[in-house]
Amino acid sequence: MSDPRTDPDLERVLPVLEAVRAGAPLVHCITATVSMSLVADGLLAAGARPMMTETLAEAPVVTTLADALLINLGTLSTDAMDAIPATVDVATRQERPWVLDPTAIGIAPVRTPLARELLASRPTVVRGNASEVLTLAGHDGGGRGADSTARVEAAEAAARQVAGRTGGAVAVSGEVDLLLDGTRTARLARGSALLPRVTGTGCLLGALTAACASMVEDSWEAALAATTWMALAGERAAERATGPGSFRMHLLDALDEIGR
Amino acid sequence: MSDPRTDPDLERVLPVLEAVRAGAPLVHCITATVSMSLVADGLLAAGARPMMTETLAEAPVVTTLADALLINLGTLSTDAMDAIPATVDVATRQERPWVLDPTAIGIAPVRTPLARELLASRPTVVRGNASEVLTLAGHDGGGRGADSTARVEAAEAAARQVAGRTGGAVAVSGEVDLLLDGTRTARLARGSALLPRVTGTGCLLGALTAACASMVEDSWEAALAATTWMALAGERAAERATGPGSFRMHLLDALDEIGR
Amino acid sequence: MSDPRTDPDLERVLPVLEAVRAGAPLVHCITATVSMSLVADGLLAAGARPMMTETLAEAPVVTTLADALLINLGTLSTDAMDAIPATVDVATRQERPWVLDPTAIGIAPVRTPLARELLASRPTVVRGNASEVLTLAGHDGGGRGADSTARVEAAEAAARQVAGRTGGAVAVSGEVDLLLDGTRTARLARGSALLPRVTGTGCLLGALTAACASMVEDSWEAALAATTWMALAGERAAERATGPGSFRMHLLDALDEIGR
Repeated sequence: MSDPRTDPDLERVLPVLEAVRAGAPLVHCITATVSMSLVADGLLAAGARPMMTETLAEAPVVTTLADALLINLGTLSTDAMDAIPATVDVATRQERPWVLDPTAIGIAPVRTPLARELLASRPTVVRGNASEVLTLAGHDGGGRGADSTARVEAAEAAARQVAGRTGGAVAVSGEVDLLLDGTRTARLARGSALLPRVTGTGCLLGALTAACASMVEDSWEAALAATTWMALAGERAAERATGPGSFRMHLLDALDEIGR
Repeated sequence: MSDPRTDPDLERVLPVLEAVRAGAPLVHCITATVSMSLVADGLLAAGARPMMTETLAEAPVVTTLADALLINLGTLSTDAMDAIPATVDVATRQERPWVLDPTAIGIAPVRTPLARELLASRPTVVRGNASEVLTLAGHDGGGRGADSTARVEAAEAAARQVAGRTGGAVAVSGEVDLLLDGTRTARLARGSALLPRVTGTGCLLGALTAACASMVEDSWEAALAATTWMALAGERAAERATGPGSFRMHLLDALDEIGR
Repeated sequence: MSDPRTDPDLERVLPVLEAVRAGAPLVHCITATVSMSLVADGLLAAGARPMMTETLAEAPVVTTLADALLINLGTLSTDAMDAIPATVDVATRQERPWVLDPTAIGIAPVRTPLARELLASRPTVVRGNASEVLTLAGHDGGGRGADSTARVEAAEAAARQVAGRTGGAVAVSGEVDLLLDGTRTARLARGSALLPRVTGTGCLLGALTAACASMVEDSWEAALAATTWMALAGERAAERATGPGSFRMHLLDALDEIGR
């Protein structure tokens, strides 16, 4: 398992993993408070470096140092609400890749229009579950909190609409992950049922996608590499785990190990 | 241990655990920043689903989706201060159960009067340590930070006063947990000395109580089930742990296992 | 390893570790959101007790209960920005030790001048990496986010300048930790390469330093004890870990074990 000589999914993306480990990109994250720790530890385990400041006074300025930016709407504090537009502006002006993770959009009255407006700043990759991608495209996604009530295949047309607007890649997470841009589509049936039983694994995938996108020009390749990395780490962690608590720990070890 | 055929404490509450696992209730949590991750991972391990948004603009609206609400005053950011009254209003208008965890009240000048005012909204369950329950009832609880300096038995009269005002249940955590409402009293001498050595286990117990309260009508039953679940998971984790770090991990695994 | 009979580094500081375990000091922490959980769990593992409130309305008041204060600028929310000066005032007026951790100063426009202003309140110990200590002393530290781009030895003169202004101790973390005050200098080449691969280990060292400083008069002794404690715990955790995820868990267990 997860040996590049025998695992073609890993073989396909291994150069991206190696580039992240060699480049140690600095990823600025405005993300859900509840998952900050997993996101930061996951980036470090993968060989990248996290930064997390979310005030209007500081986030845009420190983003000038960053190699990539993650905007995750998971908690959306008042500080984050105020800082996100200006921080995204810095990333786009400096032509740094940035990832939009429209966590839990739906009935939430601030993040839902904010996520749609942010599409105009053309995120390099949009990553979400099926409900979130449907909602982002203007449909009724039916999400409840951070959970998807829709299946990935139901969001494929919506994902294409989003990709059409941004010109970048869209990654829809689910039992079978869907990755597409204007010309290519991949499906990945890997990972573990324990991944959604740990808070913030989706947020971490968004951050890892930003790290990969800072190392390769092709945003679809970056999204595919991050999704594969996370899925294979999830498989390895599941082999070792006795429950969701030990899975979380092994997941971080496995992010460090996959493909070495 | 923790086998329903041989553990009468577990046998008594097992239907509630099974209902949470079957129902996967959505629990909206406004809780201490420091323990958000444990609270969310603990809810997921127990089979429930967490949501965590704490702005006035979004928390009341997303609470309309929730099956239960936890209000924990542990950090009490400006966002949370602003959002709590309106969010509690949504829960009570929609007749959703809600749990008040008056963490670290005492000399703190905002949370202490806020906790007392919230009693008028009749929390389904109040959960705290002895110092917090004494303070909530208007006595000098003598708390220092999140720690209790009073013993559970010293807070029994105060717990009855609080239950008299809310009409709900009160759970006082300590070496011997006390659970009472207007007519019933239970004491539970289970758990592990490692539980207070991990940040947020009390907050998680509050969240688990909210999850249980969304699945059974009887708030005292819900509080007893959550307290027992946590205590038995603590016992199992302590058998496996070599210190507080490994205990935290095993606790999450054990929440997933107890009673299966 | 880490046996006081055979490890002179441990033997030298063991009385401080024992004093923390006996005294269970209450440490109020205004710290990076991303590392709050590790800081709190680490303090508990070491035998101290954390408190974490960061609003202007409550942080200064609850600090009157605390035995020591940590100010870490890692996230610097609007709440923290507003509360820090008044909270430091309480600590200094009550003659409680306080630790300044100027995380990620450099280009960040709020925390950088704030950290320099706070030197006038004479922190008992300043703890940072080489880039942060250089920047604090008014030089170009060259930091990128929370990472140091400078080596410890390059910051020695800057550390002496800072100690000259505060009259306290300065701890510069790196491969070889440097600890100095107006009269003494120590270097410690212990620890593990896994420590910087877990988010918040530096923040935790700041908090542990505050705990130690509340138990001994001598701020240099306190800084040396905390640095040694963390380094030896890191060594023991590294022996047991299979990656950064398991290292984090074992680190907490080891903080509880070292020197017992």
